[in-house]
Amino acid sequence: MHTDVQPRGARAGAGATSTARVAVAGATGYAGQELLRLLARHPAVELTTAMSSGATASARPLPALGHVWHGTIAPFAPDALARDADVVFLALPDAAAAEHAPALVAAGLRVIDLSGAFRLRDEASRARWYPETHAVPDLVAYGLTERERGHVAAARLVANPGCYPTATLLALAPLADAGLLVPGADIVVDAKSGVSGAGKTPSERTHFSECYGSVSAYGVFNHRHAAEIEQGVGGSHALTFVPHLVPLDRGILATIYVRVAPGTTEAGLADVYERAYAGATFVRLAGSALPEIKHVAHTNFCDIGWRVDPSGRAVLVSVIDNLVKGAAGQAVQNLNVMLGLDEETGLL
Amino acid sequence: MHTDVQPRGARAGAGATSTARVAVAGATGYAGQELLRLLARHPAVELTTAMSSGATASARPLPALGHVWHGTIAPFAPDALARDADVVFLALPDAAAAEHAPALVAAGLRVIDLSGAFRLRDEASRARWYPETHAVPDLVAYGLTERERGHVAAARLVANPGCYPTATLLALAPLADAGLLVPGADIVVDAKSGVSGAGKTPSERTHFSECYGSVSAYGVFNHRHAAEIEQGVGGSHALTFVPHLVPLDRGILATIYVRVAPGTTEAGLADVYERAYAGATFVRLAGSALPEIKHVAHTNFCDIGWRVDPSGRAVLVSVIDNLVKGAAGQAVQNLNVMLGLDEETGLL
Amino acid sequence: MHTDVQPRGARAGAGATSTARVAVAGATGYAGQELLRLLARHPAVELTTAMSSGATASARPLPALGHVWHGTIAPFAPDALARDADVVFLALPDAAAAEHAPALVAAGLRVIDLSGAFRLRDEASRARWYPETHAVPDLVAYGLTERERGHVAAARLVANPGCYPTATLLALAPLADAGLLVPGADIVVDAKSGVSGAGKTPSERTHFSECYGSVSAYGVFNHRHAAEIEQGVGGSHALTFVPHLVPLDRGILATIYVRVAPGTTEAGLADVYERAYAGATFVRLAGSALPEIKHVAHTNFCDIGWRVDPSGRAVLVSVIDNLVKGAAGQAVQNLNVMLGLDEETGLL
Amino acid sequence: MHTDVQPRGARAGAGATSTARVAVAGATGYAGQELLRLLARHPAVELTTAMSSGATASARPLPALGHVWHGTIAPFAPDALARDADVVFLALPDAAAAEHAPALVAAGLRVIDLSGAFRLRDEASRARWYPETHAVPDLVAYGLTERERGHVAAARLVANPGCYPTATLLALAPLADAGLLVPGADIVVDAKSGVSGAGKTPSERTHFSECYGSVSAYGVFNHRHAAEIEQGVGGSHALTFVPHLVPLDRGILATIYVRVAPGTTEAGLADVYERAYAGATFVRLAGSALPEIKHVAHTNFCDIGWRVDPSGRAVLVSVIDNLVKGAAGQAVQNLNVMLGLDEETGLL
Repeated sequence: MHTDVQPRGARAGAGATSTARVAVAGATGYAGQELLRLLARHPAVELTTAMSSGATASARPLPALGHVWHGTIAPFAPDALARDADVVFLALPDAAAAEHAPALVAAGLRVIDLSGAFRLRDEASRARWYPETHAVPDLVAYGLTERERGHVAAARLVANPGCYPTATLLALAPLADAGLLVPGADIVVDAKSGVSGAGKTPSERTHFSECYGSVSAYGVFNHRHAAEIEQGVGGSHALTFVPHLVPLDRGILATIYVRVAPGTTEAGLADVYERAYAGATFVRLAGSALPEIKHVAHTNFCDIGWRVDPSGRAVLVSVIDNLVKGAAGQAVQNLNVMLGLDEETGLL
Repeated sequence: MHTDVQPRGARAGAGATSTARVAVAGATGYAGQELLRLLARHPAVELTTAMSSGATASARPLPALGHVWHGTIAPFAPDALARDADVVFLALPDAAAAEHAPALVAAGLRVIDLSGAFRLRDEASRARWYPETHAVPDLVAYGLTERERGHVAAARLVANPGCYPTATLLALAPLADAGLLVPGADIVVDAKSGVSGAGKTPSERTHFSECYGSVSAYGVFNHRHAAEIEQGVGGSHALTFVPHLVPLDRGILATIYVRVAPGTTEAGLADVYERAYAGATFVRLAGSALPEIKHVAHTNFCDIGWRVDPSGRAVLVSVIDNLVKGAAGQAVQNLNVMLGLDEETGLL
Repeated sequence: MHTDVQPRGARAGAGATSTARVAVAGATGYAGQELLRLLARHPAVELTTAMSSGATASARPLPALGHVWHGTIAPFAPDALARDADVVFLALPDAAAAEHAPALVAAGLRVIDLSGAFRLRDEASRARWYPETHAVPDLVAYGLTERERGHVAAARLVANPGCYPTATLLALAPLADAGLLVPGADIVVDAKSGVSGAGKTPSERTHFSECYGSVSAYGVFNHRHAAEIEQGVGGSHALTFVPHLVPLDRGILATIYVRVAPGTTEAGLADVYERAYAGATFVRLAGSALPEIKHVAHTNFCDIGWRVDPSGRAVLVSVIDNLVKGAAGQAVQNLNVMLGLDEETGLL
Repeated sequence: MHTDVQPRGARAGAGATSTARVAVAGATGYAGQELLRLLARHPAVELTTAMSSGATASARPLPALGHVWHGTIAPFAPDALARDADVVFLALPDAAAAEHAPALVAAGLRVIDLSGAFRLRDEASRARWYPETHAVPDLVAYGLTERERGHVAAARLVANPGCYPTATLLALAPLADAGLLVPGADIVVDAKSGVSGAGKTPSERTHFSECYGSVSAYGVFNHRHAAEIEQGVGGSHALTFVPHLVPLDRGILATIYVRVAPGTTEAGLADVYERAYAGATFVRLAGSALPEIKHVAHTNFCDIGWRVDPSGRAVLVSVIDNLVKGAAGQAVQNLNVMLGLDEETGLL
């Protein structure tokens, strides 16, 4: 990567002894609050600044963070970010992220963006699913940490993946890489998500009484995360992705239906996953003991299980906490990689 | 009661052979939808009209009512009510109920009002807690059915009780009537309610992720239902009422702490309750087998249990479904009484 | 059907004026209690007898049924069933149902069996999935009411379908019948069920703290309901069925992924469904407005929605209450058909 | 405190530079698993041993602890504890704790006991509520950390408080100490607890379908935690304690109704609390902004709020996570005090 501005975070990380100054913009949403919680206890960073996503709105108190984080939420002010931080997390709406991230990079900061603005590299796809954003610059690294460590380490702008793509691709991409998926065969991703994934803005969709005791499918043939999953899998597969809301707060379980060559065994899949995730603290391989959301809630883990039948049908099950590994936790994991720290720092 | 207009519902009910025409105004809220469901299957009424609470808003579909109720929701139009109905249920905001109910009565209809506008008979109390309403006319019956059948039967305007007062007073008032409560002793009512009691309007308070996995107290020393409970108990007690939101959709459990004379027994309380509720289908006496919300959810029952210790401390537990016995169901029960029908009609 | 014993229920139903005497064996489980509730309010039957599934166990009280049903639960005694009832519902373990149902039929009763003992007509399949039962007699009708009315009306022994097959087949079978499914193409059924489907016996699997806040897949490539679904669809499809537990009590949502001919439209599917379910009260067609569990909880409805993309991928969504349409409600619906009553009787 | 055996943990803690070797007996229950999670990431201890509560039972895997804790669960073997640990946490049934704790202390270990065996100092009360245990030795410290730091620091055997007493006493005891409670006046403690407090053993009481959508009171006038609360409050009050199960997994909210002198203000209570908890990281004072369970779930915090009316009625609201501050977290907090570490170590 050609850089004419020396990333400040990289300096900080080089020796890993100094403390990086970090900021969060968009700190009052669910992902933003989780970022504050993680960064407040992170031993190698100083959380200097937290801003809401609006320039005027005064933030409400965050009672869950009392005695954990001693700062206050300021109105959004991009200039202050460049002054007070080496690395900035953006948890802003897509359009705001698209507007501000490049300027912050130009000002010498390293940026970890949690929006969708920089995730889709194909310009036609980006323009269709994120029309309010701009073409994604080449320098952006896609922050699916376990699969992109090299790019993330060097990047000045990291596009933190979506929650559904994180859960799906960590299970699916190694099989695609290994050539195990039958070419052209259908792939079905049936994902179940807790309601925090729908964000904090009150709506009928997120009303307790509407979600409680119910399950609903949404976004059929029309969800932007489908494009992000296809980008990560590649190949010629027809991929059908249907997300569902389930009545819990945090967590995603993705059930993935694929075709592998007849005779492929569960042990064969285990080999592929073990090679793909050797040394990866945050991916746990459950094999035929299928994982459940409760195993990963409030953690940065992705647990993956699988079953295969002799005819070549395979079912993969992948679980994450959508706010941690699916958002704030993976963002901190990327920060650790960018700063040259142990990947687990502050996350176990 | 002096009446210069013959109530039409009374005519319908006199022989109980004709069918009363009923309407619901405010049919899209949670209580309103429950009313539609109950009235659609009620064998002795014709649900002629359902209106939303706004004059312009187009109502969203009610998919849960498909094949149950074949009507549509019209914009609010009070004139049409008088034309198409003999009895009207108002599930409107307090101010709208205060404005429209008297005119509907004057037009000859009988009105069952589910708002708070007509519940508090003491004018100072009414003015404090419902300042947007008007002094309550004498002709209003308080519709706590089991305790007010005579008034309800004759009434042209029934104030359907609040959900917390319904659960609380059905347990507490018979003991007060029987003189069992130690004069001047404190009464504590600690009530736990599902979230549907907070209404259908989206807010941070009703966001799934805010309620899920949490319990919260609210309205301490400042809830209008405390005044309604005090009205029903009477006497010189200092009554402390604290409602709580619990993470479920439908139901209230009220735990009531009172002082009775030392030596009072659980059997003594049973006698009082059995006399008070002889023949009352919808009050079930659980005694020392304390009732739970799940026993009454989706029903019009109020289950009451009690425990007494030798020193005179008594704990009463009362449970209802806040949308049925605490709102729509009791309203239909009142309708049945007004029409001279069996009280259970359409409710079992 | 050759019958040397005149079914007593058929006599009762012939004129539909007399009242059928019905009994429930296995009344304390979740499906059994739902049966009691439905039968207690059914206008055309007399619930004469309710038994637990054990010969000695004394049943605990059923507080939710107080003032609804005035009977008591007796120990299981098959001889008493033949004496006191014309029609008997069996909600027993598979082996007990297999043992007792034929004798009850031989004694002249009509039997509606809620177990799995009589669902699989193929003997090899039956022997694999229900080894503790016996070959299914020819006279058995499969009680998926909307698709089997004729058989059910004449039957003396009805095998009430499983909950997952009910939800799945009502959506899937009409497309198979109409020849819309691409021959040989994969079918994926991803089903999400509330915990009551796992039964009332306490276990780690049904512990509140294990289910709460979690989702889990189970029975992959190894669930007996897969065989029942395949039986109902027929054809050459490889059908993958994965059930999941979701943290709610009642309800199933099945998401079904199929291939139809490219160019097939959503309107085309609507035509097929409308023909299949003309006059069917309990199937509601939601079209592209996908249904949710909350629309059908505590009802006997099955709501079906669908989406199709131009390439021929179709996603069907079907929801039921597993204890009503998936068990007790459909059993009563079958009773109504057997007695010549309106199918809705006691169910709306 | 007279000690003829030098506590080994005290040695370890003296310089606070060495690492204490700790063990957990009873590691597979909910509190035990939470202990493992906390101790695995604690920077100043080595978790050398984890045992189940049975001598023979093989423990099931703990998938949530994969990559967090790398040990295995051994059968219960008290001799091994003395060999491999300096400090041992007992999360055993009361009788087992009563049997083993004294021997472990005699062997030179320091013991933090999470059972009820050593909580009640009054022998008559102990014998009534814990008849399967023995008289509590004088050397036991009651581990309500914020109020007993001195005793805990010196203790060789710490009785970790019950979950309800922890939530209740942290709010109530400072007012009693300050003489603010009207002598002889009634105190009502209405507590709402998540289901994990009922333990991991499957039962009808903990079945998902029994708890879901319900609230229930239990243990009225008959709960051992009432005695523990009375012990902590002292005085002449008649204290009524009623616990309730609410449908969530983790957390307790206690609503406490007391009488203070008329004219006492909310600011007056704030003064008392601020003095009582100066420097106490894990008690957060919310004042009139009443705390909710979600603020403290998965943390070691106790949040306390209060409201007072002019007549002297006061309502206190206290929330904790029952498995953390109400069990494992407070146990680790006590460990930190015993070892001379910062109280927050490993807990933020």
